[in-house]
Amino acid sequence: MTAAARQPTATAFVPGHITGFFSAHPAPKPARAGSRGAGIALSDGVEVTVTPGSGVRLNGETIEMPPVDSVCTRLGIDAAVDATTSLPLGAGFGVSGALALGTALAANAVFDRGKTENELITLAHCAEVEAGTGLGDVVAQARGGLPIRIEPGSPSHGRLNGLSARPRIEYATFGELSTESVLSGDTDELTRAGESALSQLLEWPTVKRFITASQGFAAEAGLLTDEVAAAIDAVDAVGGDTDTGAAMAMLGNTVFAIGEGLSAAGYDAQQCQVDTGGARLRDT
Amino acid sequence: MTAAARQPTATAFVPGHITGFFSAHPAPKPARAGSRGAGIALSDGVEVTVTPGSGVRLNGETIEMPPVDSVCTRLGIDAAVDATTSLPLGAGFGVSGALALGTALAANAVFDRGKTENELITLAHCAEVEAGTGLGDVVAQARGGLPIRIEPGSPSHGRLNGLSARPRIEYATFGELSTESVLSGDTDELTRAGESALSQLLEWPTVKRFITASQGFAAEAGLLTDEVAAAIDAVDAVGGDTDTGAAMAMLGNTVFAIGEGLSAAGYDAQQCQVDTGGARLRDT
Repeated sequence: MTAAARQPTATAFVPGHITGFFSAHPAPKPARAGSRGAGIALSDGVEVTVTPGSGVRLNGETIEMPPVDSVCTRLGIDAAVDATTSLPLGAGFGVSGALALGTALAANAVFDRGKTENELITLAHCAEVEAGTGLGDVVAQARGGLPIRIEPGSPSHGRLNGLSARPRIEYATFGELSTESVLSGDTDELTRAGESALSQLLEWPTVKRFITASQGFAAEAGLLTDEVAAAIDAVDAVGGDTDTGAAMAMLGNTVFAIGEGLSAAGYDAQQCQVDTGGARLRDT
Repeated sequence: MTAAARQPTATAFVPGHITGFFSAHPAPKPARAGSRGAGIALSDGVEVTVTPGSGVRLNGETIEMPPVDSVCTRLGIDAAVDATTSLPLGAGFGVSGALALGTALAANAVFDRGKTENELITLAHCAEVEAGTGLGDVVAQARGGLPIRIEPGSPSHGRLNGLSARPRIEYATFGELSTESVLSGDTDELTRAGESALSQLLEWPTVKRFITASQGFAAEAGLLTDEVAAAIDAVDAVGGDTDTGAAMAMLGNTVFAIGEGLSAAGYDAQQCQVDTGGARLRDT
Protein backbone atom coordinates (compact mmCIF):
# COMPACT_ATOMS: atom_id res chain seq x y z
CA MET A 1 0.00 0.00 0.00
CA THR A 2 1.01 3.60 -0.36
CA ALA A 3 0.23 6.31 2.09
CA ALA A 4 -1.48 9.04 0.12
CA ALA A 5 -4.08 6.99 -1.75
CA ARG A 6 -7.46 6.72 -0.08
CA GLN A 7 -8.04 3.03 -0.50
CA PRO A 8 -11.28 1.17 0.03
CA THR A 9 -9.83 -1.55 2.25
CA ALA A 10 -6.79 -2.47 4.31
CA THR A 11 -5.89 -5.47 6.44
CA ALA A 12 -3.67 -5.59 9.51
CA PHE A 13 -2.25 -8.60 11.33
CA VAL A 14 -1.88 -8.42 15.09
CA PRO A 15 -0.20 -11.26 16.99
CA GLY A 16 -1.91 -12.92 19.90
CA HIS A 17 -0.24 -12.10 23.22
CA ILE A 18 0.15 -14.33 26.26
CA THR A 19 1.12 -12.63 29.52
CA GLY A 20 3.15 -14.72 31.95
CA PHE A 21 3.02 -12.23 34.82
CA PHE A 22 2.05 -8.62 35.34
CA SER A 23 1.43 -5.84 37.80
CA ALA A 24 -1.47 -3.42 37.32
CA HIS A 25 -0.78 0.33 37.23
CA PRO A 26 -4.01 2.30 36.96
CA ALA A 27 -3.82 6.05 36.31
CA PRO A 28 -6.36 8.82 35.71
CA LYS A 29 -5.11 9.28 32.13
CA PRO A 30 -5.44 6.06 30.10
CA ALA A 31 -2.23 6.79 28.18
CA ARG A 32 -0.34 6.61 31.51
CA ALA A 33 -2.22 3.56 32.80
CA GLY A 34 -1.01 0.08 31.97
CA SER A 35 0.89 -2.87 33.30
CA ARG A 36 4.41 -4.05 33.87
CA GLY A 37 5.18 -7.64 33.03
CA ALA A 38 6.35 -10.03 30.38
CA GLY A 39 4.80 -12.23 27.76
CA ILE A 40 4.98 -13.80 24.34
CA ALA A 41 3.67 -12.46 21.03
CA LEU A 42 2.35 -15.42 19.00
CA SER A 43 2.42 -16.15 15.28
CA ASP A 44 -1.23 -17.10 15.80
CA GLY A 45 -3.06 -13.79 15.75
CA VAL A 46 -5.94 -11.75 14.40
CA GLU A 47 -6.43 -10.50 10.84
CA VAL A 48 -8.43 -7.26 10.86
CA THR A 49 -9.90 -5.85 7.66
CA VAL A 50 -11.37 -2.35 7.61
CA THR A 51 -13.64 -0.80 5.00
CA PRO A 52 -15.89 2.27 5.19
CA GLY A 53 -19.17 1.25 6.85
CA SER A 54 -20.20 0.10 10.31
CA GLY A 55 -20.26 -2.94 12.58
CA VAL A 56 -17.71 -5.35 14.02
CA ARG A 57 -17.61 -8.98 12.98
CA LEU A 58 -15.34 -11.69 14.40
CA ASN A 59 -15.11 -15.01 12.57
CA GLY A 60 -18.29 -14.10 10.68
CA GLU A 61 -20.39 -13.17 13.71
CA THR A 62 -21.45 -9.66 14.66
CA ILE A 63 -20.09 -8.77 18.11
CA GLU A 64 -20.05 -5.88 20.55
CA MET A 65 -16.49 -4.64 20.97
CA PRO A 66 -16.34 -1.28 22.79
CA PRO A 67 -12.55 -0.80 22.30
CA VAL A 68 -13.00 -1.00 18.53
CA ASP A 69 -15.86 1.51 18.61
CA SER A 70 -13.67 3.79 20.70
CA VAL A 71 -10.78 3.59 18.22
CA CYS A 72 -13.12 4.55 15.38
CA THR A 73 -14.55 7.45 17.37
CA ARG A 74 -11.04 8.70 18.21
CA LEU A 75 -10.09 8.55 14.52
CA GLY A 76 -13.34 10.27 13.53
CA ILE A 77 -14.36 7.55 11.09
CA ASP A 78 -17.19 5.11 10.36
CA ALA A 79 -15.63 1.72 9.72
CA ALA A 80 -16.81 -1.82 9.10
CA VAL A 81 -14.38 -4.12 10.90
CA ASP A 82 -14.18 -7.74 9.82
CA ALA A 83 -11.76 -9.89 11.84
CA THR A 84 -10.77 -13.53 11.81
CA THR A 85 -8.72 -15.52 14.28
CA SER A 86 -7.97 -19.09 15.28
CA LEU A 87 -7.23 -17.97 18.86
CA PRO A 88 -9.60 -18.93 21.71
CA LEU A 89 -11.68 -15.98 22.95
CA GLY A 90 -11.65 -14.75 26.54
CA ALA A 91 -8.80 -17.10 27.34
CA GLY A 92 -5.81 -14.77 27.75
CA PHE A 93 -4.64 -14.24 24.16
CA GLY A 94 -5.28 -10.50 23.87
CA VAL A 95 -7.91 -10.78 21.16
CA SER A 96 -9.64 -7.55 22.23
CA GLY A 97 -6.34 -5.66 22.11
CA ALA A 98 -5.62 -7.16 18.71
CA LEU A 99 -8.99 -5.98 17.40
CA ALA A 100 -8.41 -2.47 18.69
CA LEU A 101 -4.85 -2.20 17.35
CA GLY A 102 -5.64 -3.87 14.03
CA THR A 103 -8.56 -1.50 13.54
CA ALA A 104 -6.34 1.51 14.25
CA LEU A 105 -3.63 0.41 11.78
CA ALA A 106 -6.02 -0.54 8.98
CA ALA A 107 -8.37 2.42 9.44
CA ASN A 108 -5.44 4.86 9.32
CA ALA A 109 -4.60 3.46 5.89
CA VAL A 110 -8.17 3.31 4.55
CA PHE A 111 -9.13 6.79 5.74
CA ASP A 112 -5.71 8.38 5.21
CA ARG A 113 -5.54 9.79 8.75
CA GLY A 114 -1.80 10.55 8.71
CA LYS A 115 -1.10 9.03 12.13
CA THR A 116 2.25 7.58 13.17
CA GLU A 117 2.64 4.06 14.56
CA ASN A 118 3.00 5.39 18.10
CA GLU A 119 -0.17 7.48 17.74
CA LEU A 120 -2.11 4.44 16.51
CA ILE A 121 -0.76 2.27 19.34
CA THR A 122 -1.76 4.99 21.80
CA LEU A 123 -5.30 5.15 20.40
CA ALA A 124 -5.72 1.40 20.77
CA HIS A 125 -4.07 1.25 24.21
CA CYS A 126 -6.32 4.00 25.59
CA ALA A 127 -9.41 2.33 24.10
CA GLU A 128 -8.51 -0.98 25.82
CA VAL A 129 -7.74 0.65 29.16
CA GLU A 130 -10.98 2.65 29.17
CA ALA A 131 -13.02 -0.42 28.25
CA GLY A 132 -11.33 -2.38 31.05
CA THR A 133 -10.48 -5.23 28.68
CA GLY A 134 -6.69 -5.04 29.04
CA LEU A 135 -3.74 -3.04 30.32
CA GLY A 136 -0.64 -4.17 28.48
CA ASP A 137 -1.53 -6.32 25.50
CA VAL A 138 -1.60 -3.53 22.91
CA VAL A 139 1.92 -2.23 23.45
CA ALA A 140 3.26 -5.79 23.59
CA GLN A 141 1.41 -6.79 20.42
CA ALA A 142 2.81 -3.74 18.66
CA ARG A 143 6.38 -4.79 19.51
CA GLY A 144 6.21 -8.54 18.91
CA GLY A 145 8.78 -11.06 20.14
CA LEU A 146 8.98 -11.74 23.87
CA PRO A 147 8.11 -8.27 25.17
CA ILE A 148 8.96 -7.09 28.65
CA ARG A 149 6.91 -4.14 29.84
CA ILE A 150 9.41 -2.21 31.96
CA GLU A 151 7.22 0.86 32.50
CA PRO A 152 3.45 0.96 31.97
CA GLY A 153 1.53 3.00 29.44
CA SER A 154 1.42 4.13 25.84
CA PRO A 155 4.63 4.63 23.81
CA SER A 156 5.11 8.19 25.08
CA HIS A 157 4.97 7.09 28.72
CA GLY A 158 5.84 3.41 28.85
CA ARG A 159 9.05 1.56 28.15
CA LEU A 160 9.56 -1.84 26.56
CA ASN A 161 12.39 -4.31 26.41
CA GLY A 162 12.41 -7.92 25.24
CA LEU A 163 14.06 -11.32 25.21
CA SER A 164 15.76 -12.10 21.90
CA ALA A 165 15.07 -15.87 21.98
CA ARG A 166 12.52 -17.22 19.50
CA PRO A 167 11.41 -20.64 20.82
CA ARG A 168 8.50 -22.74 19.61
CA ILE A 169 5.37 -22.32 21.71
CA GLU A 170 2.47 -24.60 22.58
CA TYR A 171 -0.77 -23.72 24.29
CA ALA A 172 -4.00 -25.35 25.45
CA THR A 173 -7.04 -23.67 26.95
CA PHE A 174 -9.58 -25.00 29.42
CA GLY A 175 -12.12 -22.19 29.27
CA GLU A 176 -12.63 -18.50 29.92
CA LEU A 177 -11.52 -16.18 32.70
CA SER A 178 -12.84 -12.63 32.76
CA THR A 179 -10.11 -10.00 32.53
CA GLU A 180 -12.58 -7.35 33.63
CA SER A 181 -13.53 -9.15 36.85
CA VAL A 182 -9.90 -9.60 37.96
CA LEU A 183 -8.79 -6.10 36.95
CA SER A 184 -11.79 -4.45 38.62
CA GLY A 185 -11.11 -6.23 41.94
CA ASP A 186 -8.32 -5.69 44.49
CA THR A 187 -5.09 -5.96 42.52
CA ASP A 188 -2.63 -5.18 45.35
CA GLU A 189 -1.49 -8.76 45.96
CA LEU A 190 -1.35 -9.48 42.25
CA THR A 191 0.76 -6.39 41.71
CA ARG A 192 3.22 -7.28 44.47
CA ALA A 193 3.63 -10.73 42.93
CA GLY A 194 4.03 -9.20 39.47
CA GLU A 195 6.71 -6.73 40.57
CA SER A 196 8.61 -9.55 42.23
CA ALA A 197 8.42 -11.70 39.09
CA LEU A 198 9.70 -8.81 36.95
CA SER A 199 12.69 -8.32 39.24
CA GLN A 200 13.50 -12.02 38.99
CA LEU A 201 13.35 -11.91 35.19
CA LEU A 202 15.49 -8.78 34.84
CA GLU A 203 18.12 -10.33 37.11
CA TRP A 204 18.77 -12.99 34.45
CA PRO A 205 16.63 -12.33 31.39
CA THR A 206 16.21 -15.71 29.72
CA VAL A 207 13.23 -17.80 28.63
CA LYS A 208 13.83 -20.27 31.46
CA ARG A 209 13.70 -17.51 34.06
CA PHE A 210 10.57 -16.11 32.38
CA ILE A 211 8.80 -19.44 32.88
CA THR A 212 9.96 -19.78 36.50
CA ALA A 213 8.87 -16.22 37.32
CA SER A 214 5.50 -16.80 35.62
CA GLN A 215 4.90 -20.00 37.58
CA GLY A 216 5.66 -18.21 40.84
CA PHE A 217 3.39 -15.32 39.91
CA ALA A 218 0.35 -17.52 39.17
CA ALA A 219 0.68 -19.21 42.55
CA GLU A 220 1.38 -16.05 44.58
CA ALA A 221 -1.38 -14.06 42.93
CA GLY A 222 -3.84 -16.86 43.64
CA LEU A 223 -4.87 -17.14 40.00
CA LEU A 224 -3.71 -20.69 39.24
CA THR A 225 -6.58 -22.97 38.20
CA ASP A 226 -6.62 -26.70 38.85
CA GLU A 227 -6.47 -27.56 35.15
CA VAL A 228 -3.48 -25.31 34.52
CA ALA A 229 -1.67 -26.54 37.65
CA ALA A 230 -2.11 -30.13 36.51
CA ALA A 231 -0.80 -29.31 33.03
CA ILE A 232 2.28 -27.54 34.42
CA ASP A 233 3.03 -30.56 36.60
CA ALA A 234 2.53 -32.91 33.64
CA VAL A 235 4.96 -30.91 31.50
CA ASP A 236 7.54 -30.89 34.30
CA ALA A 237 7.14 -34.65 34.69
CA VAL A 238 7.98 -35.39 31.05
CA GLY A 239 10.53 -32.61 30.63
CA GLY A 240 13.98 -33.94 31.34
CA ASP A 241 15.23 -31.02 29.26
CA THR A 242 15.71 -28.04 31.57
CA ASP A 243 14.68 -25.63 28.84
CA THR A 244 11.11 -26.71 28.62
CA GLY A 245 8.47 -25.71 31.07
CA ALA A 246 4.95 -24.40 31.20
CA ALA A 247 3.07 -21.57 32.84
CA MET A 248 -0.37 -19.94 32.92
CA ALA A 249 -1.53 -17.31 30.44
CA MET A 250 -2.86 -14.24 32.23
CA LEU A 251 -5.77 -13.86 32.29
CA GLY A 252 -7.16 -17.08 30.93
CA ASN A 253 -7.69 -20.66 31.99
CA THR A 254 -4.85 -21.41 29.60
CA VAL A 255 -1.48 -23.11 29.83
CA PHE A 256 1.45 -22.39 27.52
CA ALA A 257 4.74 -24.22 27.13
CA ILE A 258 8.15 -23.58 25.62
CA GLY A 259 8.99 -26.19 23.02
CA GLU A 260 6.78 -29.23 22.84
CA GLY A 261 6.17 -30.00 26.49
CA LEU A 262 2.38 -30.08 26.31
CA SER A 263 2.31 -32.49 23.38
CA ALA A 264 4.88 -34.65 25.13
CA ALA A 265 2.64 -34.72 28.19
CA GLY A 266 -0.28 -35.91 26.07
CA TYR A 267 -2.21 -32.65 25.76
CA ASP A 268 -3.98 -31.69 22.54
CA ALA A 269 -2.01 -28.46 22.21
CA GLN A 270 -1.85 -25.80 19.51
CA GLN A 271 1.66 -25.20 18.21
CA CYS A 272 2.94 -21.87 16.96
CA GLN A 273 6.02 -19.69 16.89
CA VAL A 274 6.99 -16.40 18.44
CA ASP A 275 5.76 -13.53 16.28
CA THR A 276 8.84 -11.53 15.42
CA GLY A 277 7.26 -8.59 13.63
CA GLY A 278 4.63 -7.13 15.89
CA ALA A 279 1.37 -5.70 14.57
CA ARG A 280 1.58 -4.66 10.95
CA LEU A 281 -0.35 -3.73 7.85
CA ARG A 282 -0.51 -6.48 5.28
CA ASP A 283 1.27 -5.61 2.04
CA THR A 284 -1.37 -4.73 -0.54
CA MET B 1 16.08 -21.92 19.95
CA THR B 2 15.81 -21.92 23.70
CA ALA B 3 17.56 -19.58 26.01
CA ALA B 4 19.32 -21.68 28.55
CA ALA B 5 21.06 -24.17 26.25
CA ARG B 6 24.59 -23.25 25.29
CA GLN B 7 24.37 -23.94 21.59
CA PRO B 8 27.27 -24.12 19.17
CA THR B 9 25.76 -21.79 16.58
CA ALA B 10 23.04 -19.19 16.08
CA THR B 11 21.97 -17.05 13.14
CA ALA B 12 20.38 -13.61 13.19
CA PHE B 13 18.76 -11.68 10.36
CA VAL B 14 19.15 -7.91 10.32
CA PRO B 15 17.31 -5.84 7.70
CA GLY B 16 19.16 -3.40 5.50
CA HIS B 17 18.35 0.22 6.36
CA ILE B 18 18.10 3.18 4.01
CA THR B 19 18.10 6.63 5.60
CA GLY B 20 16.21 9.34 3.73
CA PHE B 21 17.34 12.24 5.91
CA PHE B 22 19.10 12.70 9.22
CA SER B 23 20.71 15.09 11.65
CA ALA B 24 23.89 14.16 13.51
CA HIS B 25 23.96 14.36 17.30
CA PRO B 26 27.39 13.54 18.68
CA ALA B 27 27.84 13.10 22.42
CA PRO B 28 30.72 12.11 24.71
CA LYS B 29 28.95 8.89 25.68
CA PRO B 30 28.24 6.69 22.63
CA ALA B 31 24.93 5.48 24.11
CA ARG B 32 23.70 9.10 24.00
CA ALA B 33 25.13 9.87 20.57
CA GLY B 34 23.13 9.15 17.46
CA SER B 35 20.97 10.70 14.81
CA ARG B 36 17.45 11.93 14.26
CA GLY B 37 15.85 11.11 10.95
CA ALA B 38 13.75 8.64 9.04
CA GLY B 39 14.32 5.66 6.81
CA ILE B 40 13.20 2.29 5.56
CA ALA B 41 14.10 -1.17 6.89
CA LEU B 42 14.41 -3.54 3.93
CA SER B 43 13.50 -7.19 3.51
CA ASP B 44 16.93 -7.44 1.87
CA GLY B 45 19.33 -7.71 4.77
CA VAL B 46 22.26 -9.52 6.35
CA GLU B 47 22.33 -13.06 7.76
CA VAL B 48 24.88 -13.28 10.56
CA THR B 49 25.98 -16.66 11.93
CA VAL B 50 28.09 -16.85 15.08
CA THR B 51 30.08 -19.79 16.38
CA PRO B 52 32.87 -19.94 18.96
CA GLY B 53 36.14 -19.01 17.21
CA SER B 54 37.56 -15.87 15.62
CA GLY B 55 37.45 -13.76 12.46
CA VAL B 56 34.79 -11.97 10.45
CA ARG B 57 33.76 -13.11 7.00
CA LEU B 58 31.33 -11.37 4.66
CA ASN B 59 30.10 -13.26 1.60
CA GLY B 60 32.98 -15.70 2.06
CA GLU B 61 35.77 -13.11 2.31
CA THR B 62 37.64 -12.26 5.49
CA ILE B 63 37.15 -8.57 6.34
CA GLU B 64 38.14 -6.06 8.99
CA MET B 65 35.04 -4.89 10.83
CA PRO B 66 35.90 -2.95 14.01
CA PRO B 67 32.25 -2.63 15.23
CA VAL B 68 31.95 -6.43 15.24
CA ASP B 69 35.21 -6.81 17.16
CA SER B 70 33.96 -4.24 19.63
CA VAL B 71 30.66 -6.11 20.17
CA CYS B 72 32.59 -9.31 20.89
CA THR B 73 34.89 -7.53 23.31
CA ARG B 74 31.93 -5.96 25.12
CA LEU B 75 30.29 -9.39 25.43
CA GLY B 76 33.58 -10.93 26.61
CA ILE B 77 33.56 -13.64 23.96
CA ASP B 78 35.67 -15.02 21.09
CA ALA B 79 33.38 -15.47 18.11
CA ALA B 80 33.70 -16.45 14.48
CA VAL B 81 31.25 -14.30 12.53
CA ASP B 82 30.12 -15.47 9.11
CA ALA B 83 27.77 -13.11 7.28
CA THR B 84 26.08 -13.10 3.90
CA THR B 85 24.17 -10.34 2.14
CA SER B 86 22.94 -9.36 -1.29
CA LEU B 87 23.10 -5.69 -0.33
CA PRO B 88 25.71 -3.41 -1.93
CA LEU B 89 28.55 -2.46 0.46
CA GLY B 90 29.42 1.11 1.38
CA ALA B 91 26.36 2.35 -0.46
CA GLY B 92 24.02 3.43 2.34
CA PHE B 93 22.34 0.19 3.36
CA GLY B 94 23.61 -0.07 6.93
CA VAL B 95 25.61 -3.25 6.39
CA SER B 96 28.10 -2.40 9.15
CA GLY B 97 25.29 -1.79 11.62
CA ALA B 98 23.66 -5.04 10.56
CA LEU B 99 26.89 -6.95 11.19
CA ALA B 100 27.27 -5.42 14.64
CA LEU B 101 23.64 -6.02 15.66
CA GLY B 102 23.45 -9.49 14.15
CA THR B 103 26.64 -10.45 15.96
CA ALA B 104 25.24 -9.20 19.27
CA LEU B 105 21.96 -11.13 18.88
CA ALA B 106 23.53 -14.37 17.73
CA ALA B 107 26.47 -14.27 20.16
CA ASN B 108 24.12 -13.72 23.11
CA ALA B 109 22.38 -16.97 22.16
CA VAL B 110 25.54 -18.99 21.47
CA PHE B 111 27.38 -17.87 24.58
CA ASP B 112 24.29 -17.65 26.81
CA ARG B 113 25.06 -14.09 27.93
CA GLY B 114 21.62 -13.35 29.39
CA LYS B 115 21.29 -9.92 27.76
CA THR B 116 17.97 -8.31 26.89
CA GLU B 117 17.16 -7.01 23.40
CA ASN B 118 17.74 -3.41 24.50
CA GLU B 119 21.14 -4.32 25.97
CA LEU B 120 22.18 -6.02 22.74
CA ILE B 121 20.97 -3.07 20.64
CA THR B 122 22.93 -0.75 22.93
CA LEU B 123 26.10 -2.82 22.53
CA ALA B 124 25.85 -2.69 18.75
CA HIS B 125 24.87 0.99 18.66
CA CYS B 126 27.84 2.00 20.81
CA ALA B 127 30.20 -0.12 18.72
CA GLU B 128 28.99 1.60 15.51
CA VAL B 129 29.21 5.10 16.99
CA GLU B 130 32.71 4.53 18.34
CA ALA B 131 33.90 3.10 15.02
CA GLY B 132 32.41 6.11 13.20
CA THR B 133 30.59 3.84 10.75
CA GLY B 134 27.05 4.95 11.61
CA LEU B 135 24.84 6.87 14.01
CA GLY B 136 21.29 5.65 13.64
CA ASP B 137 21.17 2.46 11.61
CA VAL B 138 21.31 0.01 14.52
CA VAL B 139 18.27 1.29 16.42
CA ALA B 140 16.31 1.56 13.16
CA GLN B 141 17.29 -1.96 12.09
CA ALA B 142 16.22 -3.28 15.48
CA ARG B 143 12.74 -1.78 15.06
CA GLY B 144 12.05 -2.56 11.40
CA GLY B 145 9.30 -0.95 9.30
CA LEU B 146 9.68 2.71 8.38
CA PRO B 147 11.44 3.95 11.50
CA ILE B 148 11.50 7.59 12.55
CA ARG B 149 14.28 8.46 14.96
CA ILE B 150 12.65 11.12 17.15
CA GLU B 151 15.46 11.33 19.70
CA PRO B 152 19.02 10.08 19.15
CA GLY B 153 20.79 7.31 20.98
CA SER B 154 20.44 3.81 22.35
CA PRO B 155 17.07 2.48 23.60
CA SER B 156 17.56 3.97 27.07
CA HIS B 157 18.17 7.45 25.69
CA GLY B 158 16.62 7.61 22.22
CA ARG B 159 13.03 7.48 21.09
CA LEU B 160 11.58 5.89 17.97
CA ASN B 161 8.34 6.20 16.08
CA GLY B 162 7.37 4.88 12.65
CA LEU B 163 5.11 5.05 9.63
CA SER B 164 2.71 2.11 9.44
CA ALA B 165 2.63 1.90 5.62
CA ARG B 166 4.35 -1.11 4.02
CA PRO B 167 4.99 -0.17 0.36
CA ARG B 168 7.15 -2.05 -2.14
CA ILE B 169 10.63 -0.58 -2.48
CA GLU B 170 13.13 -0.37 -5.33
CA TYR B 171 16.75 0.68 -5.21
CA ALA B 172 19.76 1.10 -7.49
CA THR B 173 23.29 2.04 -6.53
CA PHE B 174 25.93 3.90 -8.51
CA GLY B 175 28.91 3.36 -6.21
CA GLU B 176 30.24 4.06 -2.76
CA LEU B 177 30.18 7.10 -0.51
CA SER B 178 32.18 7.06 2.71
CA THR B 179 30.02 7.49 5.83
CA GLU B 180 33.13 8.18 7.86
CA SER B 181 34.29 11.07 5.66
CA VAL B 182 30.91 12.84 5.82
CA LEU B 183 30.35 12.24 9.53
CA SER B 184 33.87 13.33 10.45
CA GLY B 185 33.49 16.65 8.58
CA ASP B 186 31.40 19.72 9.43
CA THR B 187 27.85 18.44 9.90
CA ASP B 188 26.17 21.72 10.91
CA GLU B 189 24.47 22.40 7.58
CA LEU B 190 23.50 18.76 7.20
CA THR B 191 21.98 18.77 10.66
CA ARG B 192 19.96 21.95 10.01
CA ALA B 193 18.59 20.36 6.83
CA GLY B 194 17.86 17.12 8.69
CA GLU B 195 15.98 18.82 11.50
CA SER B 196 13.90 20.71 8.96
CA ALA B 197 13.06 17.50 7.09
CA LEU B 198 12.01 15.78 10.33
CA SER B 199 9.65 18.65 11.18
CA GLN B 200 8.10 18.40 7.73
CA LEU B 201 7.55 14.66 8.11
CA LEU B 202 6.04 14.87 11.60
CA GLU B 203 3.63 17.56 10.40
CA TRP B 204 1.97 14.96 8.12
CA PRO B 205 3.59 11.57 8.62
CA THR B 206 3.01 9.71 5.36
CA VAL B 207 5.25 7.97 2.84
CA LYS B 208 4.75 10.74 0.32
CA ARG B 209 5.90 13.37 2.79
CA PHE B 210 8.88 11.18 3.72
CA ILE B 211 10.00 11.18 0.08
CA THR B 212 9.50 14.93 -0.32
CA ALA B 213 11.40 15.66 2.89
CA SER B 214 14.21 13.32 1.84
CA GLN B 215 14.51 14.98 -1.57
CA GLY B 216 14.76 18.39 0.08
CA PHE B 217 17.35 17.14 2.55
CA ALA B 218 19.68 15.72 -0.11
CA ALA B 219 19.67 19.03 -1.98
CA GLU B 220 20.00 21.30 1.08
CA ALA B 221 22.74 19.21 2.66
CA GLY B 222 24.73 19.31 -0.57
CA LEU B 223 24.93 15.52 -0.79
CA LEU B 224 22.97 14.87 -3.98
CA THR B 225 25.08 13.18 -6.65
CA ASP B 226 24.50 13.66 -10.37
CA GLU B 227 23.49 10.02 -10.89
CA VAL B 228 20.94 10.10 -8.08
CA ALA B 229 19.55 13.47 -9.20
CA ALA B 230 19.04 12.11 -12.72
CA ALA B 231 17.30 9.00 -11.39
CA ILE B 232 14.94 11.04 -9.18
CA ASP B 233 14.03 13.20 -12.18
CA ALA B 234 13.48 10.12 -14.33
CA VAL B 235 11.13 8.58 -11.74
CA ASP B 236 9.20 11.84 -11.47
CA ALA B 237 8.92 11.98 -15.27
CA VAL B 238 7.28 8.55 -15.54
CA GLY B 239 5.28 8.78 -12.32
CA GLY B 240 1.85 10.14 -13.07
CA ASP B 241 0.84 8.50 -9.81
CA THR B 242 1.42 10.96 -6.99
CA ASP B 243 2.38 8.15 -4.61
CA THR B 244 5.54 7.16 -6.34
CA GLY B 245 8.72 9.08 -5.97
CA ALA B 246 12.40 8.55 -5.37
CA ALA B 247 15.08 9.91 -3.07
CA MET B 248 18.72 9.38 -2.12
CA ALA B 249 19.91 6.81 0.44
CA MET B 250 22.13 8.45 3.08
CA LEU B 251 25.04 7.93 2.88
CA GLY B 252 25.45 6.19 -0.43
CA ASN B 253 25.46 6.97 -4.11
CA THR B 254 22.13 5.16 -4.12
CA VAL B 255 18.59 6.00 -5.19
CA PHE B 256 15.47 4.34 -3.74
CA ALA B 257 11.87 4.54 -4.89
CA ILE B 258 8.44 3.76 -3.50
CA GLY B 259 6.62 1.25 -5.70
CA GLU B 260 8.11 0.53 -9.09
CA GLY B 261 9.23 3.96 -10.22
CA LEU B 262 12.83 3.01 -11.00
CA SER B 263 11.87 0.02 -13.16
CA ALA B 264 9.28 2.16 -14.91
CA ALA B 265 12.00 4.71 -15.65
CA GLY B 266 14.20 2.03 -17.19
CA TYR B 267 16.63 1.46 -14.34
CA ASP B 268 17.93 -2.01 -13.47
CA ALA B 269 16.62 -1.81 -9.91
CA GLN B 270 16.47 -4.30 -7.06
CA GLN B 271 12.98 -4.85 -5.72
CA CYS B 272 12.16 -5.69 -2.12
CA GLN B 273 9.64 -5.05 0.60
CA VAL B 274 9.65 -3.21 3.87
CA ASP B 275 11.00 -5.44 6.62
CA THR B 276 8.28 -5.59 9.23
CA GLY B 277 10.04 -7.52 11.95
CA GLY B 278 13.27 -5.77 12.72
CA ALA B 279 16.45 -7.65 13.61
CA ARG B 280 15.77 -11.12 14.96
CA LEU B 281 17.25 -14.49 15.74
CA ARG B 282 16.35 -17.17 13.25
CA ASP B 283 14.21 -19.93 14.67
CA THR B 284 16.40 -22.96 15.26
